[in-house]
Amino acid sequence: MGLKQRQREAYNTNTRGKATAVLIIAQILFVVLFGLFVDYAPTASQQTNNTHHDPEHVKLESLYPMFQDIHVMILIGFGFLMTFLAHHGFGSVGFNFMLTCFVIEWATLINGYFKMIGTGNDRILLDITSFMEADFAVATVLISFGALLGKTSPVQLLVMATLEVIFYNISIYVGVGIFKAIDVGGSIFLHAFGAYFGLAVSRVLYKKAQTQSSKETSIYHSDIFAMIGTIFLWLYWPSFNAGPAADNERHRAVINTILSLSSCTVMTFALSSIVNKDNKLDMVHVQNATLAGGVIMGASADLMIQPFGSLIAGMVAATVSTLGYKYLQPILTEKAKIHDTCGVNNLHGMPGILGAVLSAIVCAAATRETYEKSYDELFPDSRSGTTQGGYQIAALVVALAIALVGGTLTGFLLKMLPGLFDALDENDYYDDAVFWDAVDDQPSILNEETKPESLQARTSKEDEAMAQEQQI
Amino acid sequence: MGLKQRQREAYNTNTRGKATAVLIIAQILFVVLFGLFVDYAPTASQQTNNTHHDPEHVKLESLYPMFQDIHVMILIGFGFLMTFLAHHGFGSVGFNFMLTCFVIEWATLINGYFKMIGTGNDRILLDITSFMEADFAVATVLISFGALLGKTSPVQLLVMATLEVIFYNISIYVGVGIFKAIDVGGSIFLHAFGAYFGLAVSRVLYKKAQTQSSKETSIYHSDIFAMIGTIFLWLYWPSFNAGPAADNERHRAVINTILSLSSCTVMTFALSSIVNKDNKLDMVHVQNATLAGGVIMGASADLMIQPFGSLIAGMVAATVSTLGYKYLQPILTEKAKIHDTCGVNNLHGMPGILGAVLSAIVCAAATRETYEKSYDELFPDSRSGTTQGGYQIAALVVALAIALVGGTLTGFLLKMLPGLFDALDENDYYDDAVFWDAVDDQPSILNEETKPESLQARTSKEDEAMAQEQQI
Amino acid sequence: MGLKQRQREAYNTNTRGKATAVLIIAQILFVVLFGLFVDYAPTASQQTNNTHHDPEHVKLESLYPMFQDIHVMILIGFGFLMTFLAHHGFGSVGFNFMLTCFVIEWATLINGYFKMIGTGNDRILLDITSFMEADFAVATVLISFGALLGKTSPVQLLVMATLEVIFYNISIYVGVGIFKAIDVGGSIFLHAFGAYFGLAVSRVLYKKAQTQSSKETSIYHSDIFAMIGTIFLWLYWPSFNAGPAADNERHRAVINTILSLSSCTVMTFALSSIVNKDNKLDMVHVQNATLAGGVIMGASADLMIQPFGSLIAGMVAATVSTLGYKYLQPILTEKAKIHDTCGVNNLHGMPGILGAVLSAIVCAAATRETYEKSYDELFPDSRSGTTQGGYQIAALVVALAIALVGGTLTGFLLKMLPGLFDALDENDYYDDAVFWDAVDDQPSILNEETKPESLQARTSKEDEAMAQEQQI
Repeated sequence: MGLKQRQREAYNTNTRGKATAVLIIAQILFVVLFGLFVDYAPTASQQTNNTHHDPEHVKLESLYPMFQDIHVMILIGFGFLMTFLAHHGFGSVGFNFMLTCFVIEWATLINGYFKMIGTGNDRILLDITSFMEADFAVATVLISFGALLGKTSPVQLLVMATLEVIFYNISIYVGVGIFKAIDVGGSIFLHAFGAYFGLAVSRVLYKKAQTQSSKETSIYHSDIFAMIGTIFLWLYWPSFNAGPAADNERHRAVINTILSLSSCTVMTFALSSIVNKDNKLDMVHVQNATLAGGVIMGASADLMIQPFGSLIAGMVAATVSTLGYKYLQPILTEKAKIHDTCGVNNLHGMPGILGAVLSAIVCAAATRETYEKSYDELFPDSRSGTTQGGYQIAALVVALAIALVGGTLTGFLLKMLPGLFDALDENDYYDDAVFWDAVDDQPSILNEETKPESLQARTSKEDEAMAQEQQI
Repeated sequence: MGLKQRQREAYNTNTRGKATAVLIIAQILFVVLFGLFVDYAPTASQQTNNTHHDPEHVKLESLYPMFQDIHVMILIGFGFLMTFLAHHGFGSVGFNFMLTCFVIEWATLINGYFKMIGTGNDRILLDITSFMEADFAVATVLISFGALLGKTSPVQLLVMATLEVIFYNISIYVGVGIFKAIDVGGSIFLHAFGAYFGLAVSRVLYKKAQTQSSKETSIYHSDIFAMIGTIFLWLYWPSFNAGPAADNERHRAVINTILSLSSCTVMTFALSSIVNKDNKLDMVHVQNATLAGGVIMGASADLMIQPFGSLIAGMVAATVSTLGYKYLQPILTEKAKIHDTCGVNNLHGMPGILGAVLSAIVCAAATRETYEKSYDELFPDSRSGTTQGGYQIAALVVALAIALVGGTLTGFLLKMLPGLFDALDENDYYDDAVFWDAVDDQPSILNEETKPESLQARTSKEDEAMAQEQQI
Repeated sequence: MGLKQRQREAYNTNTRGKATAVLIIAQILFVVLFGLFVDYAPTASQQTNNTHHDPEHVKLESLYPMFQDIHVMILIGFGFLMTFLAHHGFGSVGFNFMLTCFVIEWATLINGYFKMIGTGNDRILLDITSFMEADFAVATVLISFGALLGKTSPVQLLVMATLEVIFYNISIYVGVGIFKAIDVGGSIFLHAFGAYFGLAVSRVLYKKAQTQSSKETSIYHSDIFAMIGTIFLWLYWPSFNAGPAADNERHRAVINTILSLSSCTVMTFALSSIVNKDNKLDMVHVQNATLAGGVIMGASADLMIQPFGSLIAGMVAATVSTLGYKYLQPILTEKAKIHDTCGVNNLHGMPGILGAVLSAIVCAAATRETYEKSYDELFPDSRSGTTQGGYQIAALVVALAIALVGGTLTGFLLKMLPGLFDALDENDYYDDAVFWDAVDDQPSILNEETKPESLQARTSKEDEAMAQEQQI
């Protein structure tokens, strides 16, 4: 199919005034709700140099560098990791950007609402932790986005994000608020939840065409762009797992996460070539499975898992993730009709479940002697380690149930109203030409015949910006 | 025009020994002036563990992470944002690098000199704030560079930077030193000043050819490189607006800036597609207008604008910036003969002016009751809010006047001595081949006919490094 | 040579099951050794809120931001700097990633072992400084990797890294433990050591073919990718030189490093064009020589070198490095048979030696009057400045001797067992197709004839992932 034809079809697909309407209406709603319910926290408002500061509200200095690390993971990490698709770089980094900003505002409201329940407060007080917690909600949505990458419209993504943030908070309300599960870095409520929510949506939206597109591929340069995302995720993951922890637990969470990520990366390199028919390394594994060591450590990062335990956790994560990419994902696509563009089941789903199981084991082995003063900081209600271990599993089950039910419902909503939600035509998957202007010059790996046209074609930007070109 | 011809013309253009001379002379001068006038501040020199430390000199820990964020904005942010030009990636990131380092040294001297006025001191004392303030001067110069990108030689840029840093300090001396305007993140003295200084230079240097070059375009990969710049600017902007603030105001500045940037990004996505004839998103808007929310918040970041106020500010900035790129910029180019390569008027100029107006409004609404202890930290001389609001506008007017006059004078200087300053030939705009070695293999989107030559051509690097190649 | 042929030869080269075996065996060994010898440091284990904390173990907050900066330098900095090779982007960023994670684990053990010598301790206690020190060992290995880039197999690199970390620790044991040399940012023990260790390996492994490959080249986009590495190295270098310093010395180290890097960059731009026959700038210099200002400051960063002294140091570093790339490197390759892919002699070797000499001079000029309280922090055993200066040179000589001997022995080991260590065939240098799957679509700058094949070829990823493609 030539370039002209591809463009014409793209024109037919959508009427994107809907995305504009959704975004503007949402933004006006955010302004109203922020005006009604949101204030600065005391540490950010007038009380300069107050000595009797509320211990609930943190000082900026203690968290800001870790918050910024997490922020980089969200926008550079997720954003560039997804640019591996040859023809979907704009959509990957662009819609990642749009969703992040939309969810920062929305999650500030919804997270704040759920935190007010039962407290008697009626104001949401913003400090740096509010944005860190908003980023955690953003990460959950972006994991789901990874399962759907290239197959959904901006409107569908915004609708999904809106609902997912609510389900995400329900899951945390039950799992952390009631069960008091430990999940500092979100193995359960973020990684597993986000992955299976997204996969449930993907299952409902499944079309055979999406598994057959020649556009679902990377090229040499797009794989290098993706490594920017991978490495910033890897580098700043210790901040992700340690940011919400307190004091000494934070130091331990950093150590455990670095060790788990390091052994996971070594193991990924070991396994990637051995499962390849030519004994070669696969960039998909290096880009993704290397990060599973961060996911699996999410629920145990602040526990006394011991340095060698962190190394083992990373090895397990790498093994499950690499084998998942290699053997399980094709089966899921073909047999279970679950298409997973970024392989979030392998990077977030299974390692997240393993992270929950790991935390249950580590909790069950916990004693007051080992943890000393931090025992009561970590384990609520003077629970025994074994009891806490049981609650970890209970929380996992609840989170998975809510993710699957919530994702399925969301998927059907998106499917029921394809016109309203700008659902994509089957020929338009994984292609920036659908939603982005001036991508005529994108890499022409598809068909040889598109090459000459691509070279001849002027970008519309040039057409607009220039009058008559000089003879040069 | 084929490759060979392009190269031959490039050879005729410049004698770049001049850039070498300028840089070496300047560097030797910097050494002499640093030797005569610059010392370590007490916190960086010998007094270890001093308990009676001078409150004027900050400890490293409190500012270093924010300083590094700002430093990333300068070199990765500005540098990569400008790589959107298909044939000017080396010049964008390279000259950005050169200018930054040149101005760090020069601004340390000039900023230090202006800060000494009236204090009786005769030494410039370096600590981490010195470099943060130098980075602010660098940012101002880089904004002006954005207006001139691809149309000026290194010598012209260095001359401009040298003069601009002086005008920048005069503007701050009047606006902050005398009028005591509030502008923590530089809406007025940095963004508006830098934009209109650069646009004034651009107006004077205007040639019709610069608006007609087919080389002034992006390609698919260069737009993704540019997103690296955009996103690091977006991510670290809270540090830019909060770094110079104090204590609790710093926390507030972070919150306000994150909110403004988020709503600005949502609004940019809403507007970008609706103003496009095919209802598609434009990477120019996503790369630039999303950042206007940081600019508009520059003068109000540490004020009590309230969270919903920050959201509204971001929406306004996005609207003005996106519409500016779409409708105003072509008019400026064609009618006003102001060519603005990066569209700094839309990203820094108009949002900067709006930021000044916003700060005036927020100041005018300020009361002691709302600000409590931070009132006297922010508002000098026990001024009323209304009075301060007036001074905000006065400072804006002065900054714009100095920018326009200073930029115009600088432009005429650069124009008067084209030979001395290596002025570019009209055919050499937006093309790395002029100043950079071994760019024969750059993306050949220009003309189909250049493609085969480009593939055959050996880079000169290969020619130099290799002897006779083996038969392989 | 066409694509098909290139691939077939690559298949013959290696049996990469060996890399898998090495990595898995090493990883299991790491788990056992960590289990036997490694614990959390007190600040990371149970003692929450302990007031009587061991001053030997630092709090997370004081070092974490600087540690993360260094971590970014290692993985983004080194990793992307080496992506300048047109056909070796995966191997550059990928093997950099693999080596880093392998050495983090290995160096934690070996560094910890060497630190225990003579202390009576038998446990390695992990805190954030352990990882910072591990990153320093990683950097040393990566510098050696730079000399060998594209010419060695993963197995060879892992064997080299294993040995180099031991030699590195011996060198530090003698130079710092016994001679008490000052080298906060590693001019001697990291940059010079790593460079000459790698060059010794490279000398032993020298084959004429490696200097004649048309694949040892950059292309336009790969040079821009490399700039991501350069700039993050440049930006975070102050953290590298200041991280291991204490308190006020840290502030001074930041200032000295920023100044040295800035003047080095200005000087590099000045010299790069003047040594070019067409008066054009060379990206090799901008990518590398700009960083020599950080290297030369490594041993003097925390000394009272004075701001103007830092500027001069940067100028000297730029001059030696740029001229080294231009004039010395071709001679080394042709006459001395030392092939240096990344030019580590110019970036790390010679500037590292100069850094040692500089530190000797600065030490010799030191007086108690100038340093006040920090004199005894810096200079051990109440030594005079002149004595310390002598020990600086002695330490340099020892480090160079150990590097050259260690590197030569390592090189012969790698050469003696080419089959065991997967040594590369001469035709496979600088080519990702050897070790990486699905790189058929890499940039086809080599020969025109490869172009059409590259466009027709399906990546194996597509072949695997897709069934029968729809007719589109």
